[in-house]
Amino acid sequence: MLSFDIVKPSLIIDKAKALENIQHMQAKAAYHAAIFRPHFKTHQSGVVGEWFRQAGVDKISVSSVNMAQYFADHGWDDILIAFPVNLLEIKQINRLASRVDLQLLLEDTTVASRLDDLLEHPVGIYIKLDVGAHRTGIPMENERKILELAKAIAKLDKLRLNGLLAHAGQFYHNPGGITAIQEEVSAISKQLSWLEQRIDDENLLLSWGDTPSCSMLESLPDFDEWRPGNFVYYDLMQYHIGACQLNDIAVAVACPVVAIHPERNEMLVYGGAVHFSKEFIAADQNFRLYGYLVNFTGKGWSDPIPGAWLSGLSQEHGTVKLPAGFAQQFKPGDVVGILPVHSCLTVDAIGIQYTTEGELVSKMNFA
Amino acid sequence: MLSFDIVKPSLIIDKAKALENIQHMQAKAAYHAAIFRPHFKTHQSGVVGEWFRQAGVDKISVSSVNMAQYFADHGWDDILIAFPVNLLEIKQINRLASRVDLQLLLEDTTVASRLDDLLEHPVGIYIKLDVGAHRTGIPMENERKILELAKAIAKLDKLRLNGLLAHAGQFYHNPGGITAIQEEVSAISKQLSWLEQRIDDENLLLSWGDTPSCSMLESLPDFDEWRPGNFVYYDLMQYHIGACQLNDIAVAVACPVVAIHPERNEMLVYGGAVHFSKEFIAADQNFRLYGYLVNFTGKGWSDPIPGAWLSGLSQEHGTVKLPAGFAQQFKPGDVVGILPVHSCLTVDAIGIQYTTEGELVSKMNFA
Repeated sequence: MLSFDIVKPSLIIDKAKALENIQHMQAKAAYHAAIFRPHFKTHQSGVVGEWFRQAGVDKISVSSVNMAQYFADHGWDDILIAFPVNLLEIKQINRLASRVDLQLLLEDTTVASRLDDLLEHPVGIYIKLDVGAHRTGIPMENERKILELAKAIAKLDKLRLNGLLAHAGQFYHNPGGITAIQEEVSAISKQLSWLEQRIDDENLLLSWGDTPSCSMLESLPDFDEWRPGNFVYYDLMQYHIGACQLNDIAVAVACPVVAIHPERNEMLVYGGAVHFSKEFIAADQNFRLYGYLVNFTGKGWSDPIPGAWLSGLSQEHGTVKLPAGFAQQFKPGDVVGILPVHSCLTVDAIGIQYTTEGELVSKMNFA
Repeated sequence: MLSFDIVKPSLIIDKAKALENIQHMQAKAAYHAAIFRPHFKTHQSGVVGEWFRQAGVDKISVSSVNMAQYFADHGWDDILIAFPVNLLEIKQINRLASRVDLQLLLEDTTVASRLDDLLEHPVGIYIKLDVGAHRTGIPMENERKILELAKAIAKLDKLRLNGLLAHAGQFYHNPGGITAIQEEVSAISKQLSWLEQRIDDENLLLSWGDTPSCSMLESLPDFDEWRPGNFVYYDLMQYHIGACQLNDIAVAVACPVVAIHPERNEMLVYGGAVHFSKEFIAADQNFRLYGYLVNFTGKGWSDPIPGAWLSGLSQEHGTVKLPAGFAQQFKPGDVVGILPVHSCLTVDAIGIQYTTEGELVSKMNFA
């Protein structure tokens, strides 16, 4: 049982676990003498931001201009918008750059020069490299284009080149495990260090930041800055990858039970795609895992119930598969917990967050 | 080009198409002498609600208690919450039942009697039947349980049995096409009519309501009430099923272009899972369709560009695949349109909606 009443799907944060996750990652970055610039898109919360600040963090990453505004309003003054510059938001960017040390992402010389024309205040710039995820950025092998952009930035008045930035999103789909990741990270860091020397700037940062590699690897010595985000809460995707233990997951969605279907070993919970997002883990064509079932205890939640999982989501409905004969243990009006597959999207979808003690953790919708 | 400026991902509604979709479905229900109780979870908008009201609609369906409150605040006074009663929200339900003619869904005798105990005002009740989707409801073959619940409701003071309610969600995954749907609907309507006679109430409504069958079938004569929702906007899923033409889709997401990747015939747009949700259409293991690319015109948008589609989504990033040699037609700072796969979830995720004329269509986040 939760120690306070909820009436509809609500995100519950285990603050002690989140604090441990923060402290652990911060200590790891410090051990490697890296700047720690955690990504705040996972929690999107001013209150959780304070937990980071109390742990000594003073630089952050966010994924949108609105999110940067929100955290600027919460007193953060060194903010990286870790998304390629959207020129259409120049007014908002100018307002932000007037009040915080703003860092932006570029991968295109034309955008660099248009940005410089439109800016009213200086900003820091990271060059976005594609190190294998093929989502965006200049391919790290394209030295000509990278050096060209670095030179163009150097000539522009309001752009100050801070570093080279990589996000190895491919580690979210990595069948080779930790050894393969370690080898790939070594190859990437060699290439990035070489690029850094070519650009010939001693102060250039190599900025790195996916939660799987920052969590799994013992050693990440060549990167000057770490930007993981998901680690504060973790989730089933990270557990599936091997980046955390189930016990590290600091977030569960509290869902009211609304119907029991013993004839097919299922129950229906109030908790759907508008609360969880539709992210899933696929085992095969016919199996989609949207979450694991837990029971709330006074202080947190139990281990996942073996053989029980969230198997389907529509707009507001969640279907929970149960072990045979288990359905009778639940009744409409109960509240169960679900460990989500993707905590960032669940936070964004569901809105309001509480700690297990019932403290409201404020939330903005940044979409 | 849109006729007004947007700076970030925004939902754009073609009002003329939406009005046509409303009028068409309303006329079809009227032709069958059915009550039209459209589902408002698709648009979640007081303004769009007025378009329905002006077309003569005075009864609505919603998917949550919060959404019912919102539309009650917008002057709707006959509201069905088309989701199994969540007893934990009894306070909000009582407040609603004090001010509107509230209809609720039940499938369990124990919940019926607990609800009656907790209610302060009478409400209308529909018995939720499972007619093949296996999401929730009493299986329509389980006559004993259905009759038992109907009898229990008849004995309870504050519950007034209105009808039997079905949602044939299985038609979203129907490989047999329109003929198979027509046959299945005939079998379901025969069973529901038989149940109605057994319950022996001449005024009992048979309430029906998935957008695919309401859109595709010429004839739905045995149902007294229609509750489709998605048809107001439609989307690629409905097009994929065969429930609409591409030209009927009344919603597109305007997305800023932020990077061009001609080397792999791709561009990156600002528009991610927090705007579209992660709903997709799968053609095979390696192909996921998240949306079709269109160009905005002064008054609306073009047909989809052949060979172009939204192929990947992360939190804020959208990857658009382009035909070979096409990438040069776009540049960062452009705004492109994406027809979404699932308009209901996209509306819920993205928030603010505009018409193609730039009229703000208000929006609540109901999660």
